[in-house]
Amino acid sequence: MPLGKRMDFGDAKYAGVEVAWACDIVETLENALTTGFDFVMAPLVHPRFRRPAPTALPRGTFQPPFTRSDLLLGSGQWGGQVVGKISPWIDCDSANAALARDSAAALAQELAWAAHLSLQAVALPPPQQPLNAANYARVLNEVLGGVASMALWLRIPAAAPTLPDDPSDGDAASSSSSAEGAVLVADPWEWWNQIRFLCHHSPRLGVALELGADLPSEANLQRWRGEPLKAVVVPTSAFLTNKRGFPALPKRHQDFLTECFKRGVQVVLSGNPHHTSPEAAQPGGNAVAVAADGAALAAAAANPLRLYWEYLSFLFRKIEAASEQELVEMSYRDYLQSPLQPLQDNLESQTYETFERDGTKYTTYEEAVYRCLLDRVPQEEAESRVTVLMVVGAGRGPLVAASLRASVRARRRIRIYAVEKNPNAVVTLQNRAIADGWEGTVTIVPADMREWDAPEQADVLVSELLGSFGDNELSPECLDGAQRFLKPDGVSIPQAYTSQLQPITSHKLWNDVRAYDDLEHFETAYVVKLFKFCPLAPTQDVFTFEHPNRAHVIDNTRSVKLSFECTPPGGTVCHGFAGYFDAKLYNDVHLSIHPPTHTPNMFSWFPIYFPLREPFYVPQGARMDVAMWRCAGKHKVWYEWAVTAPHGAATPIHNPGGRSYYVGL
Amino acid sequence: MPLGKRMDFGDAKYAGVEVAWACDIVETLENALTTGFDFVMAPLVHPRFRRPAPTALPRGTFQPPFTRSDLLLGSGQWGGQVVGKISPWIDCDSANAALARDSAAALAQELAWAAHLSLQAVALPPPQQPLNAANYARVLNEVLGGVASMALWLRIPAAAPTLPDDPSDGDAASSSSSAEGAVLVADPWEWWNQIRFLCHHSPRLGVALELGADLPSEANLQRWRGEPLKAVVVPTSAFLTNKRGFPALPKRHQDFLTECFKRGVQVVLSGNPHHTSPEAAQPGGNAVAVAADGAALAAAAANPLRLYWEYLSFLFRKIEAASEQELVEMSYRDYLQSPLQPLQDNLESQTYETFERDGTKYTTYEEAVYRCLLDRVPQEEAESRVTVLMVVGAGRGPLVAASLRASVRARRRIRIYAVEKNPNAVVTLQNRAIADGWEGTVTIVPADMREWDAPEQADVLVSELLGSFGDNELSPECLDGAQRFLKPDGVSIPQAYTSQLQPITSHKLWNDVRAYDDLEHFETAYVVKLFKFCPLAPTQDVFTFEHPNRAHVIDNTRSVKLSFECTPPGGTVCHGFAGYFDAKLYNDVHLSIHPPTHTPNMFSWFPIYFPLREPFYVPQGARMDVAMWRCAGKHKVWYEWAVTAPHGAATPIHNPGGRSYYVGL
Repeated sequence: MPLGKRMDFGDAKYAGVEVAWACDIVETLENALTTGFDFVMAPLVHPRFRRPAPTALPRGTFQPPFTRSDLLLGSGQWGGQVVGKISPWIDCDSANAALARDSAAALAQELAWAAHLSLQAVALPPPQQPLNAANYARVLNEVLGGVASMALWLRIPAAAPTLPDDPSDGDAASSSSSAEGAVLVADPWEWWNQIRFLCHHSPRLGVALELGADLPSEANLQRWRGEPLKAVVVPTSAFLTNKRGFPALPKRHQDFLTECFKRGVQVVLSGNPHHTSPEAAQPGGNAVAVAADGAALAAAAANPLRLYWEYLSFLFRKIEAASEQELVEMSYRDYLQSPLQPLQDNLESQTYETFERDGTKYTTYEEAVYRCLLDRVPQEEAESRVTVLMVVGAGRGPLVAASLRASVRARRRIRIYAVEKNPNAVVTLQNRAIADGWEGTVTIVPADMREWDAPEQADVLVSELLGSFGDNELSPECLDGAQRFLKPDGVSIPQAYTSQLQPITSHKLWNDVRAYDDLEHFETAYVVKLFKFCPLAPTQDVFTFEHPNRAHVIDNTRSVKLSFECTPPGGTVCHGFAGYFDAKLYNDVHLSIHPPTHTPNMFSWFPIYFPLREPFYVPQGARMDVAMWRCAGKHKVWYEWAVTAPHGAATPIHNPGGRSYYVGL
Repeated sequence: MPLGKRMDFGDAKYAGVEVAWACDIVETLENALTTGFDFVMAPLVHPRFRRPAPTALPRGTFQPPFTRSDLLLGSGQWGGQVVGKISPWIDCDSANAALARDSAAALAQELAWAAHLSLQAVALPPPQQPLNAANYARVLNEVLGGVASMALWLRIPAAAPTLPDDPSDGDAASSSSSAEGAVLVADPWEWWNQIRFLCHHSPRLGVALELGADLPSEANLQRWRGEPLKAVVVPTSAFLTNKRGFPALPKRHQDFLTECFKRGVQVVLSGNPHHTSPEAAQPGGNAVAVAADGAALAAAAANPLRLYWEYLSFLFRKIEAASEQELVEMSYRDYLQSPLQPLQDNLESQTYETFERDGTKYTTYEEAVYRCLLDRVPQEEAESRVTVLMVVGAGRGPLVAASLRASVRARRRIRIYAVEKNPNAVVTLQNRAIADGWEGTVTIVPADMREWDAPEQADVLVSELLGSFGDNELSPECLDGAQRFLKPDGVSIPQAYTSQLQPITSHKLWNDVRAYDDLEHFETAYVVKLFKFCPLAPTQDVFTFEHPNRAHVIDNTRSVKLSFECTPPGGTVCHGFAGYFDAKLYNDVHLSIHPPTHTPNMFSWFPIYFPLREPFYVPQGARMDVAMWRCAGKHKVWYEWAVTAPHGAATPIHNPGGRSYYVGL
């Protein structure tokens, strides 16, 4: 049965248990289901049955069945309740040629068998020759290129295993002959990374992370956030005994597991029970608790792993409920959206509706207008002086309403021009002017702010033309066009905005871009609610714009070189860049989606994602140099970007001439 | 006028001269042509005319023409006789923002002007900020992505320039802040490499290598052999004075220039004349030489650079004439051919004819059969014993003829079965049997050797089924099929063969593969007469096959891991791998295209080229690990390959499952 009822963590509510070989898989499965688990991770073939490759057998040699019959379970059971385990003796990269040959044949055979059973997933043992696993990867890659939809879960220990006593034994030694090699072998993430690169980042190859009693550092674990983590294997040996004699995980394990649940990662319990007599702790226990535990104890007697399942269920259920906002955003997580083209296209009613729902944004604007009004008009002129506001890009009116509220709060008189180029939104504005009694204060202007011939000069230009990367929806070009009707001492709200960038790991986003199967999509930026990602370095500022721009000739092209010092405590992989912005609406009043200063409870903007054509490996502590340009032609604005260091990772310049992605003027 | 009459070095016979700015380019060009040069490398704009970017000028500012009129020359002259020089002050990556901005605008302006003039090529100054040239590359990349067909020649000094005295000055310092950075900046190849990667290996971006008075090591220069070297700039200051007072280049310069000529690289003379009075040397000179030099001296008086041109012409003309074989092969240089599919397709008459022209190959086969006959049949049985030869894949009969010659030389009797599956070749065999009197000795068998039911057992199986990579035309599978009619003590000629591999730089081959614009061609091997390439490490053995193969079950799949220690004295780039083979025909008699043991004067096989999907950077002295597999299915055989180290260069496994390239069984 599921660990809990909540639906928002995907498959994480289904927990599995690793089981030993049993000819009678029916009974094994029934036991697991009775205990509470939803699936078993079970060997496909007896784990000690090493068999010679067919090419090593004399022609016509009799071959007994290599495993039990598929008739034992129905195909629905195989598919829904069994994750296959590949035999642990398999060592395709062994220095022993016969073992390597037999291993490759057995691996291909077991994977074919798993596909025959329509298993949803197969768990693969960690490479026996870390960083020297090309043959292993070759068999996996061939299967991944086949027609089956089966997922492969490569088991990778979370913490570095103890190095073998005799490093001269076997192939692994040659990989670790250099100091660098030894360091790399000691980091199991590197094992995964080699196989993943050889399999060209296949979306069906994922990781089953094996936790030990000790966990590596928090920063080390963080690296997995951008990786395709499919399962976490928790050994019973990692459990401690709580005061009442029940199994419980150490705090850091709890936290990591909770993080995993939230990301939809499934848990698999592994190992033998170590907590068979919880009664032993009863004398020191709480009488009420003991009574409540009665049912659990009874179940535990029949199913010795029941207590562990109960604990996992407890952990799962105690995760705080998602907020309403989180529930709304859930369906956008890691979902690529093309940025708006607000100048070329007219927004739809639905889009306005979504934006207008963001109360925080408009109260922040209200605050900016409020402070601006107070600064511009002294108390003694409150009655006599009317401040002229022009809301450029008024949409359906939320900034008009916010400005009116600010005027009331500030006790300052205003006159508003609401300039909007979308004729459909103008209809809303006109109706609202009647309904909300705006007449006399608000003039609706159906025009493009870049061309409108204003009847008077404005004190304040209010706009919300920002995209996820600040200037990417052409706020600079629009405001430059509108500022000609701003008084010489007039103010633009926003006064300025700056974009930020940081390199990230995000296997999913990159694969989603790849799924389009063309170059254009690798040279396009996407608006995306980043979720399964890992930042590789602190953000850095990219482009800044200030308004009004009083330069003789306005140049909105930009060029920047950033140098990131990558912080993860080991190698990582970079799939592109996350972008944000921070806008100074008025003096200290900011709107920001830049993580360190994100405006609380504001959801109008998700970050932006700039992909790279190929992911690249980032050595520990590497400096990553990135060049980015904002370019402008007569009819369009676009970005180009490239990585120039580490030296071996230099990329081509992406999107030259805006060939794949641009914003039309 | 051309440096010489020979046609086999492409454009190398046209030499150019770098000239200073002159408003009267007509006179400048005439002078150069009179001196002997075929083109000038001339500034497009006055080299000190730094002008502000249009975006930095107030609107409506009057702009005088930035350079002289295009009407001075006809478009044929601009296109055919002028290589444009980009202004040297341009520094797009300067820390001085105004200079960077003006530079990018001027560079774009000059390149647009050059395209307007239909120039064939433009010479670009070396990056002023080595390894920090992203902005420079961005402008170039945009032009390369445009419609013009103009080539860009990036000027790169051959030898490391002296580092600036004050390393804290300017942006360059930040690139060289690490020890590694400093080493990289000191190697001008790295400057080229950064810009080339940013421009994604554009086929229109090449190098004009500037020689100094001192040349770097031979190994250093070798790295340019695989790069798109378009021109060599030779300064007059590199010339010495010979005994007769004439300018002459040092020996190493001569050798390098000769190599360049042979590769079709053009020479451009640069600098002021330093040899204006050759008469001074006359007293010590040879009277006859002096007389012969009379005309040259007269010309030199009018054109002070004439003596240098004469010397370049002398160097060009003294290159030894190409051999007949070289002339034949010239048109195949760096030309990608798909390997034969001899089992699926029947060869054409023309293909047989080409193969049969290779006398060396057949005399080597004759020698192998000769020695084998002597070994198998002692003198005393020479008359009584008939050795049964089966020539499998007899084609149009060259191996039959070679075997017959061997039989005569060895005074041993033979009986030959000539087995051939191509019905068209069988016609030739049958006619030849009549015309050459083979009846009684040679039986023609129109059959596939894998299926033929032989009437008797053979002593010797003679075949020539090898491809450029040894086993790649399925010799193993064919001979395994044929060996069933070989006597238990029978011999196969060849007895064994081994393939070899080495990583190479080859900008041209990789770009030719890319021109197909699909994944398939990057996962295909090509037969190619390697010419403009640079090996990055000594070859290593890959796959070996021995015949006959007496294993119970024959397994012709193979798997190998190679570890190359890269030898170039600096960074390089790897575009894939060159493959060769060495076949042991009989004991010491080998046929080889493996460079260290290449059979002299044999031309039947060119090397094979395995490309990579993306070129990758190879740091100096790096170890490069490569995995390669020979895989077999029911109906096909294929290779897969991948790079697994350096770590940052790991590639996907190429050609999984033979999806792009295979040889049909």
